[in-house]
Amino acid sequence: MDSISLVGTVSIIVAGLTIAIGSIGPALGEGRALSEALNAMAQQPDEADTITRTLFVGLAMVESTAIYCFVISLIIVFANPFWDFVIQNAAP
Amino acid sequence: MDSISLVGTVSIIVAGLTIAIGSIGPALGEGRALSEALNAMAQQPDEADTITRTLFVGLAMVESTAIYCFVISLIIVFANPFWDFVIQNAAP
Amino acid sequence: MDSISLVGTVSIIVAGLTIAIGSIGPALGEGRALSEALNAMAQQPDEADTITRTLFVGLAMVESTAIYCFVISLIIVFANPFWDFVIQNAAP
Repeated sequence: MDSISLVGTVSIIVAGLTIAIGSIGPALGEGRALSEALNAMAQQPDEADTITRTLFVGLAMVESTAIYCFVISLIIVFANPFWDFVIQNAAP
Repeated sequence: MDSISLVGTVSIIVAGLTIAIGSIGPALGEGRALSEALNAMAQQPDEADTITRTLFVGLAMVESTAIYCFVISLIIVFANPFWDFVIQNAAP
Repeated sequence: MDSISLVGTVSIIVAGLTIAIGSIGPALGEGRALSEALNAMAQQPDEADTITRTLFVGLAMVESTAIYCFVISLIIVFANPFWDFVIQNAAP
């Protein structure tokens, strides 16, 4: 029962901390890019379409790093191979 | 009963810390983007519609990182597979 | 009785820390956006209505990250599944 407790506990801790820490960087980066894009649109209103298109493609790239953390968190919770092995072998 | 206490305790701690830490980045990023949007509207009042539209789509992207943390917190509290396993196997 | 003490104690601590830590980011972000809004209204008094409307919708987005922390704190206090399980099984 000891390895089950240990693996389960660590899985919960890491799943939460992964997305918690992993969301700080993307959110700050997206906020910075968005603020600068709005500033650029105020300086050059005629180029608003180009700025908006570039902004959204760039935000999707930044957002992908947050999605990586989200996917890893979900994998650790719902498709954890270490947990699967431990619960199969530790309950004879 | 020991593993139940351990997994339950850790689940509560991680669920709280995930959304607590995960809300810092998105809130600061959204605040920065919003402040710059208002500054841009003061510079170019004629482009207020374009700036507002771009701002809200961008804020939704930033907000999504906070929603990821919220989803993981709710999963850890209400749909935790480790907790489900522990309470099924530790109550003979 | 030991697991009841542990889960109850941790629930109280985490419920407080979640909203305490989680309120730092939204408060700073909203304060920054509000200060810039007042600055923008001083630059363009004619656009005060547009700036105010955009400010309040944006503040609601920032506020939502604080509401997530508030919801998790309330869940930990009033709808804690770990606590419910512990008090049902530890009182034979």
